[in-house]
Amino acid sequence: MRKKDFLPAFAFSRKKEVRMYYHEINLRTTGTAMMKAYILDEEITHRRHIKRPLMVICPGGGYLTLAHRESEPVVARFLGAGYNVVLVDYSVYFKQRPNPGEPGVVNQGFRIADAVQDLVQALNIIQENSDAWFIETSRIYLLGFSAGAHLVGTVAENYRDPEWQKRFRVQFTQLTLQGLILAYPMLTATEVNVKERDAFRDLMAREDILQLDLTQNVSAHMPRTFIWQGNEDQTVNPLTTTQFILKLQQAGVPCEYHLYEKGGHGVALADRTSATTPDYIVPNLAQWVTAVQVWLAQDDGELTLYPDLRE
Amino acid sequence: MRKKDFLPAFAFSRKKEVRMYYHEINLRTTGTAMMKAYILDEEITHRRHIKRPLMVICPGGGYLTLAHRESEPVVARFLGAGYNVVLVDYSVYFKQRPNPGEPGVVNQGFRIADAVQDLVQALNIIQENSDAWFIETSRIYLLGFSAGAHLVGTVAENYRDPEWQKRFRVQFTQLTLQGLILAYPMLTATEVNVKERDAFRDLMAREDILQLDLTQNVSAHMPRTFIWQGNEDQTVNPLTTTQFILKLQQAGVPCEYHLYEKGGHGVALADRTSATTPDYIVPNLAQWVTAVQVWLAQDDGELTLYPDLRE
Amino acid sequence: MRKKDFLPAFAFSRKKEVRMYYHEINLRTTGTAMMKAYILDEEITHRRHIKRPLMVICPGGGYLTLAHRESEPVVARFLGAGYNVVLVDYSVYFKQRPNPGEPGVVNQGFRIADAVQDLVQALNIIQENSDAWFIETSRIYLLGFSAGAHLVGTVAENYRDPEWQKRFRVQFTQLTLQGLILAYPMLTATEVNVKERDAFRDLMAREDILQLDLTQNVSAHMPRTFIWQGNEDQTVNPLTTTQFILKLQQAGVPCEYHLYEKGGHGVALADRTSATTPDYIVPNLAQWVTAVQVWLAQDDGELTLYPDLRE
Amino acid sequence: MRKKDFLPAFAFSRKKEVRMYYHEINLRTTGTAMMKAYILDEEITHRRHIKRPLMVICPGGGYLTLAHRESEPVVARFLGAGYNVVLVDYSVYFKQRPNPGEPGVVNQGFRIADAVQDLVQALNIIQENSDAWFIETSRIYLLGFSAGAHLVGTVAENYRDPEWQKRFRVQFTQLTLQGLILAYPMLTATEVNVKERDAFRDLMAREDILQLDLTQNVSAHMPRTFIWQGNEDQTVNPLTTTQFILKLQQAGVPCEYHLYEKGGHGVALADRTSATTPDYIVPNLAQWVTAVQVWLAQDDGELTLYPDLRE
Repeated sequence: MRKKDFLPAFAFSRKKEVRMYYHEINLRTTGTAMMKAYILDEEITHRRHIKRPLMVICPGGGYLTLAHRESEPVVARFLGAGYNVVLVDYSVYFKQRPNPGEPGVVNQGFRIADAVQDLVQALNIIQENSDAWFIETSRIYLLGFSAGAHLVGTVAENYRDPEWQKRFRVQFTQLTLQGLILAYPMLTATEVNVKERDAFRDLMAREDILQLDLTQNVSAHMPRTFIWQGNEDQTVNPLTTTQFILKLQQAGVPCEYHLYEKGGHGVALADRTSATTPDYIVPNLAQWVTAVQVWLAQDDGELTLYPDLRE
Repeated sequence: MRKKDFLPAFAFSRKKEVRMYYHEINLRTTGTAMMKAYILDEEITHRRHIKRPLMVICPGGGYLTLAHRESEPVVARFLGAGYNVVLVDYSVYFKQRPNPGEPGVVNQGFRIADAVQDLVQALNIIQENSDAWFIETSRIYLLGFSAGAHLVGTVAENYRDPEWQKRFRVQFTQLTLQGLILAYPMLTATEVNVKERDAFRDLMAREDILQLDLTQNVSAHMPRTFIWQGNEDQTVNPLTTTQFILKLQQAGVPCEYHLYEKGGHGVALADRTSATTPDYIVPNLAQWVTAVQVWLAQDDGELTLYPDLRE
Repeated sequence: MRKKDFLPAFAFSRKKEVRMYYHEINLRTTGTAMMKAYILDEEITHRRHIKRPLMVICPGGGYLTLAHRESEPVVARFLGAGYNVVLVDYSVYFKQRPNPGEPGVVNQGFRIADAVQDLVQALNIIQENSDAWFIETSRIYLLGFSAGAHLVGTVAENYRDPEWQKRFRVQFTQLTLQGLILAYPMLTATEVNVKERDAFRDLMAREDILQLDLTQNVSAHMPRTFIWQGNEDQTVNPLTTTQFILKLQQAGVPCEYHLYEKGGHGVALADRTSATTPDYIVPNLAQWVTAVQVWLAQDDGELTLYPDLRE
Repeated sequence: MRKKDFLPAFAFSRKKEVRMYYHEINLRTTGTAMMKAYILDEEITHRRHIKRPLMVICPGGGYLTLAHRESEPVVARFLGAGYNVVLVDYSVYFKQRPNPGEPGVVNQGFRIADAVQDLVQALNIIQENSDAWFIETSRIYLLGFSAGAHLVGTVAENYRDPEWQKRFRVQFTQLTLQGLILAYPMLTATEVNVKERDAFRDLMAREDILQLDLTQNVSAHMPRTFIWQGNEDQTVNPLTTTQFILKLQQAGVPCEYHLYEKGGHGVALADRTSATTPDYIVPNLAQWVTAVQVWLAQDDGELTLYPDLRE
């Protein structure tokens, strides 16, 4: 899979006045997967600029669809915290999601490895643009929700393996995957209880279930990891998550775990910004956003301003 | 001055996949003033959408320039809190700001009334686009820093006056200016101590100083108002701000005031997101961001999802 | 008035095992006014001890009674923040407060000056015990609610005046009144709207109203001051409070002011700890507790442990 | 062991004016173990009173000593949050703790079962006094640090077992142990790395190590449990803690777990209130205090005031 369409925002044409850069970049020639880069203006004050850490976000959706709630509201929250953000709309099972009365259109050839390829491709493109986008390449974070957590976890576990690098055409060797953030993560293909059961079963029938088990492939090379979940989660099993943390601890991976007694799945920020119904405003779960910012801040170095080398 | 160039983001061409809409719109034919609309995707979940309150931000800069620190980082913070945002890059004194060795280029004809016209024009354009941008028209907030606070304050005090409406071609009568947020506000043209003293003096020489005194024009029709400032502010006088709050109280305008014992001017968010040097990270001042979100949340109604009427 | 009864807690008899010291000390021979000292154990770890700053709390009650809500719950909150605390149950108008059907018993001779004397006496006793109670004498704070704020404000304004010192027998010259905290303060005797109107009027008939106006006696010698109030306060006028802050600013007294748009009088901590009914849980007002702790923390010096000089 | 000395505070003699009640009660005739009850005044406003939940605190110290840092500062914090508090100074190995040059005096007969008996005895006494102390008997919480966590955990796991009840003379059957809070808990007797190694080894030589393993005795009858720890803990193994949480989840015990990536053992509140040196101020760990208050608040029912039945 090669990088195809680079669609610059019209913004590039008048660089001096532009603030945020917004780029949509296809990850596949078919246009069925794309990444969206939200880049804050690097010029933080007159003629001086900074580089920013990057948050790469993969929403959930069971690998069947992409959850809105875990997409843009989360992008906005991290932009507001001073991160540049890339949102990865990776390949999924449904080309067109089902609606009442309509069965949906399935991407017949879809395999989870396609999604993995998409994330790798996104990271390759990020590396290519890291100067233009003023990214602190030593601070790339992967944040995934549910199946999106499975996706970022897959890359975090394997990206250093030479075989795997070859298979997925990894080029992003100059990026440091500094941290991994998993929100109510889908860590295995079993013990998952998604709404569209038949579709999920159909998808899993094509996959190698054992290969999908992230709990079996933890290694000391993984980035520091932050995991959170509600212990009343009915969609993915919180016991599996605790077992996963245990493996990280055993492997010596620096990790942080917030298992909240109450609350379930799919809440994204758990406050009004991402809520579709009042059910999705869960104050005790919303604590995760503050906790992750404290955890991320441990990587804050000194504020560095770069002299203006641009025209 | 009429609205001229409407530059749609390329995003419009492929509406379904687009998340955030980013629009730059000229406020003047000369291109010397513009507004930037940052519109979150209204589709909060599959086929259901919401409307969002709007934060209109005017950065400071003494009416001489526009402060970066009070622009995009602040935009990002409010996007992350679930607001759509319009940043107004209004007309200012310097067409090209001075640099070491260069005197800068002055916009000779500039008058503060031009900036006022720009903000009015932005609000007119917001009203025109309020459906397309899914704005809760009953929740428009004006947020200004320093001179930007003088600007939003000027509009908030006068926009209901018929004479004033005619002079500035106010059309945004269907918008409710629900709240006014003033950060270390420049409330008068005197007792202001900006860095570029000569330029400021030159500008003020052209103005009617009395007309610029916001403390003289408070009325009960003003929106609810939130003001904050550091009591060690050396640029604008915190005593004037306290006197202004007193007038709001006397006029019966609901208001909130946070005067912090320590801390000065120009800190924007006062945390790392807007900081250019460690001096600009002022934890006690950063409390204002949380306080304003509590104040804004008092307007939160019930979460309302709209049925999908789009194709 | 001299210090009469010193009632040591039984705790002194077995000093080594005792943690918190709790002392009740009469401020008057009649036993109608007392102070309660809550002293945390100075032995912070084996054989090393620290000194603590002291919070002196005066509850409100219109000088007619003493409000429970502003007494012990507030004591507990500041103990929990690492302060030693003295609660002053100063003389008030009612010897026995009225109940439905009972008129209450009035202390006929009561004058506000009696309450002032009580607070001075408490400070004198604090100075005498500052070593035994391991008080950081450079960090004495006065916190008053409503009429209690009037009381602490009176002392803060006058305690350096030689005449006043003589009149009230001030001995606490080795204490530094480092800060003054006023919660919805009664600053004058007018524009006050208490429940027991007749009693208040009777009391004020005996007083010199002008002498009671704190807004007239601000000076640069006052300690740094933190004031908060809800702008919907129906009992004391928030406009007076804003005018008072203006005077502090004009006098060059370092000050901080939090005027909350919504919320009224008498809420103490405004959370569950001090609430008697759900009305007294007012989340936007509860912000004051965090704000005052940030303000107080500005006086935190280095942690100092003292060697163990005790047996 | 029977309850022996009941030492009322002098406070009882003048009940009406007293605010906080402070009681020291021996748990053993030898006077080598005691409980300290800190009871907030139940009269929350004139003639109306409330009952409060109770926090029972067991400090750590490896069963060798009792840590100051985890005693009174923690008591004060929970009083400030509106809890009545009982601090249990349970029996420990050292009768007199060692000092430089002094070996310390060992309580030769000491067994961990003595400490367990002390906690049971404290709960029995609490039940006896629950009316007098205005305790909400449905909301008793046990909070333990390190070895103190082992102690409260031991009671929480066993107190419903009839054999165990007989052995330890459990009488507190009318109390509901509503929640268990374990701070960097010692869950087994192995993998513990305390400073006084020889003493700990000597103590453990007398014990049945298997009986001390809390991970082996989890049952569905345990109260809802909140556990926190720093993942850099060098004294007790965080892996054991994660395994323990897994067992709680497997048993269906509602639980919450906060494992912080950075930070170690013995920090108590991890802020200035309990700190002996700057090392003990660890902001990321201090988050636990807020998290536990959110967790506790889930048990808050309606505010209930009781009519005044006292004279």
